[in-house]
Amino acid sequence: MADISQDELDDIYAFAVNLGKEAGSMLLDAAKLRIGDNRATQEQKEHVQKENAVDLVTETDEELEAFIRKAIAEKYPLHKFVGEESYSKGASRDYLIDDSPTWCIDPLDGTVNYIHLFPMFCISIAFIHKSKPLVGVINAPFLNQFFSSCSGRGAWLNESQQLPLIRNPIPPMPEKAPSGCVFSCEWGKDRRDIPDGNMHRKIESFVNMAAELGGRQGRGGMVHGVRSLGSATLDLAYVAMGSFDIWWEGGCWEWDVAAGIAILQEAGGLITTANPPPNEATAPIEAVKLGSRLYLAIRPAGPSSTETARETQERTVREVWRRVRNLDYSRPGA
Amino acid sequence: MADISQDELDDIYAFAVNLGKEAGSMLLDAAKLRIGDNRATQEQKEHVQKENAVDLVTETDEELEAFIRKAIAEKYPLHKFVGEESYSKGASRDYLIDDSPTWCIDPLDGTVNYIHLFPMFCISIAFIHKSKPLVGVINAPFLNQFFSSCSGRGAWLNESQQLPLIRNPIPPMPEKAPSGCVFSCEWGKDRRDIPDGNMHRKIESFVNMAAELGGRQGRGGMVHGVRSLGSATLDLAYVAMGSFDIWWEGGCWEWDVAAGIAILQEAGGLITTANPPPNEATAPIEAVKLGSRLYLAIRPAGPSSTETARETQERTVREVWRRVRNLDYSRPGA
Repeated sequence: MADISQDELDDIYAFAVNLGKEAGSMLLDAAKLRIGDNRATQEQKEHVQKENAVDLVTETDEELEAFIRKAIAEKYPLHKFVGEESYSKGASRDYLIDDSPTWCIDPLDGTVNYIHLFPMFCISIAFIHKSKPLVGVINAPFLNQFFSSCSGRGAWLNESQQLPLIRNPIPPMPEKAPSGCVFSCEWGKDRRDIPDGNMHRKIESFVNMAAELGGRQGRGGMVHGVRSLGSATLDLAYVAMGSFDIWWEGGCWEWDVAAGIAILQEAGGLITTANPPPNEATAPIEAVKLGSRLYLAIRPAGPSSTETARETQERTVREVWRRVRNLDYSRPGA
Repeated sequence: MADISQDELDDIYAFAVNLGKEAGSMLLDAAKLRIGDNRATQEQKEHVQKENAVDLVTETDEELEAFIRKAIAEKYPLHKFVGEESYSKGASRDYLIDDSPTWCIDPLDGTVNYIHLFPMFCISIAFIHKSKPLVGVINAPFLNQFFSSCSGRGAWLNESQQLPLIRNPIPPMPEKAPSGCVFSCEWGKDRRDIPDGNMHRKIESFVNMAAELGGRQGRGGMVHGVRSLGSATLDLAYVAMGSFDIWWEGGCWEWDVAAGIAILQEAGGLITTANPPPNEATAPIEAVKLGSRLYLAIRPAGPSSTETARETQERTVREVWRRVRNLDYSRPGA
């Protein structure tokens, strides 16, 4: 597989940005229709009243994915396409991303938020080559927040503010991290009340991160705040922005995180696995496998007086690993 | 104490809206200065680099409260003023709101978010008369979301979209609430790892609300999503918007919630106490006491085929009370 030049990548980026804007505007229109915006036609209004919220969302999801897929197929007929909707309906549950130039799309991340019209929902578009997310576009139209990045071109909020936002200088991770950090995590869909199930492992981990220093048999992390937004994609965007210091999650699929990883890495963030390796204090900290479903993200950081930027991030990774449980998420069929 | 006419209230509302806009723009300027916005003067940039984030926030907080306080004193010299900053520095820890016309202000809610530049921070301005919040203004300038309400005039997002957003018709609370509901809750600052302390009582309640139906000895609520934003004020705004169905919290002060309660009640929401009364299944559901520090909010609802709107809300209150623990927050000196 040939390399992609910066010129080609810039073209792909420009295309992805435009596509993200068009799709975002369609998504906002669909949301406004549910609000009962006056510009809706009588036919549209009747349609919205007839269907229930979940059906409407599925419809919006499928329409958006079809729109994005068609636009990509027209512009880049040789590129592969992996989207949430088409994956769910496909025969294979395998990890579909290989070395080929591939688009990985979530037409609507934060579905529950969208159903309830909580603004934390978005479109997520990533371009991946040789298994590396190189371009990321996240459009949260109800928030007026548009995140984008291109390898070699920086990561941006609304195409004007470079990420991370605080960058003159970019602060190191706090000396006593996770203390002083905003910790982002999600309750997810696996709510089975079984002893040592994922829900209870997550809660135990959350409580360790939150509890006072010295509490929880020395595991208390006393994070500055615990946040749950209900969108993995936006969690990653806010880590790239520097607003969240740490995001720890299991269960996501590649379309939930591909664009966010592109943006985070271009901004200088680190992403590795959620599950602590056996020798957590010394194990090498490797970049996450996109299809692993287990993610730990650390915000972009600068050097401290005694550590490199990367060292402050790696120290934080180990301090998180020390406080969290292994989660049990695998790929169906894997 | 004389009643306030709708005309007087409309004037107060117009004044509060303008004040919220001016203060919001000051807050956004202060945030942009920390981002290193190019328009900052050299002197401003040096100041930002010299101070640490927490000092800068305290400074912004105090400046904003002084600005708001002065504007109110000039326009309404006979009205009382209760603000977070002035309360914290004052001698009394008593509940300061009585029957007088009173302004209750939080110049910066979501302080941790503001420090980390996570957009969920806001200014909160309430006008209270005879202990009832009658006017509410919440400005979240980094989100471009401006919430406002005036008793008798409706509750609004960005002065153009009436709250709740979905209103043709407004849906009843879900039949199996809390299942189907977005549940908003906060980890808060009390992280003491003591058996049966507030942190553990909260977590037990959160897990009950989240767990599968049938789980947790029948207490599993299987909510549609659990959200934590780190701003009580914005939690209430999103309940008024209809995005969050349920918000349950202890520990807030009156300035954290006064504007949100005004907006929520004007939108048709219900707010009562977080702590289940002894006879939770039959106890009368009373409007919350503003100074109680214990809050349970239910979104605006419409009638179902078998219940009035209020009945669907009250049913939800009782289902929440059945799943949550009493929290231990009192007023210092109370």
